[in-house]
Amino acid sequence: MPVKLVTIQEEILKDNNEMSKMLRARYAESNTFVVNLMSSPGAGKTSTIIETVKRLGDDISAAVIEGDVTSTVDAEKMDAVGIPVVQINTGGSCHIDSAMIEQTLDTFDATPFDLVIVENVGNLVCPAEFEVGEDVRVMILSVPEGHDKPKKYPLMFTETEACILNKVDLMPYTDFDMNEFEKSVKSLNPNTSIFPVSMKTGEGLDPWVAWLKERILAKKG
Amino acid sequence: MPVKLVTIQEEILKDNNEMSKMLRARYAESNTFVVNLMSSPGAGKTSTIIETVKRLGDDISAAVIEGDVTSTVDAEKMDAVGIPVVQINTGGSCHIDSAMIEQTLDTFDATPFDLVIVENVGNLVCPAEFEVGEDVRVMILSVPEGHDKPKKYPLMFTETEACILNKVDLMPYTDFDMNEFEKSVKSLNPNTSIFPVSMKTGEGLDPWVAWLKERILAKKG
Repeated sequence: MPVKLVTIQEEILKDNNEMSKMLRARYAESNTFVVNLMSSPGAGKTSTIIETVKRLGDDISAAVIEGDVTSTVDAEKMDAVGIPVVQINTGGSCHIDSAMIEQTLDTFDATPFDLVIVENVGNLVCPAEFEVGEDVRVMILSVPEGHDKPKKYPLMFTETEACILNKVDLMPYTDFDMNEFEKSVKSLNPNTSIFPVSMKTGEGLDPWVAWLKERILAKKG
Repeated sequence: MPVKLVTIQEEILKDNNEMSKMLRARYAESNTFVVNLMSSPGAGKTSTIIETVKRLGDDISAAVIEGDVTSTVDAEKMDAVGIPVVQINTGGSCHIDSAMIEQTLDTFDATPFDLVIVENVGNLVCPAEFEVGEDVRVMILSVPEGHDKPKKYPLMFTETEACILNKVDLMPYTDFDMNEFEKSVKSLNPNTSIFPVSMKTGEGLDPWVAWLKERILAKKG
């Protein structure tokens, strides 16, 4: 199937929170659970989506809204494994906002799905400031980025309900301090759930998938 | 020495390119060579600066302007190894601009130095759009981020004169395709120099340091 592409061209003028409320109301009607997935470039958002959807099983239908400055690289990967996808090109903007999602509605109807994952632009700063009608906000940090990142990019850690720590298979080759990392994250956000995983080996994926599935099913009813 | 800290509070109103010209004229008078160093969070900007300054030797005096959304983590690391440093906290902004640099001038005089490295906010998108009075723009990609990043974040690759590929020591544990990476980078920017290095092992640092030193000395005269 050819990848659907929406290029954002107009100046975004409408208030983002208002637009996010509109999206949330739309998803509430169809019991569609929406995840806003954020991380630095290369932390593993795309592989996390593919591995997660695979493990959620056939009883949960899932689709993806891809956000990128340019290119359809990630959408093509989703399409290759049969996940319905629409690609947003932000045209330079370093985050997805609700007005961009709204511009996809004519092209891509997310409401038939139980789960929609918004793969945000790779950036650990701005995406945390813009709601996109989501039920939960999930971030990924990867081990090679270092355990000091919560101190340097705190908003991403305070504004999310779950923190996936990816690439734990690389732990032995880095100086990543797990205790220091957990302490920093919990001091910023005591209620967040931390999931150490490796999308490469599959290690640690079950608790994360169970956490997500419970929330999707609660909304599905 | 206590770390100097400048927190950016005012709305930035002046035109960035004009401000950058002003900074450039100031650095030209003192023959100070300025590097704008950019990468994703955790790619290795701080360790690159420390290892590079160490290898440049005593005949080149160097200082650092640190940019972070919040915290003084990196400035403290510079201070610990004796590199003169001023920290800019951008207060949420995901990049450094010239007006922010201008606000450091009262606190921190860069003109006595042969080299000033501006360590930008960790972000592969926006920093490429804002000049800071620099002579050269250098980016770092790290191996775990993946070889597909030039396709997804092309501006950072087209707007820089050198691309440091850090963490090559992790190459055996990833699926990073060096040929594919070099081909992508060169197709975006045929004139850029690619330096595969490991700041952890010191591998590959000499060609990068030589490239930089040649340019510093040419300006120093």
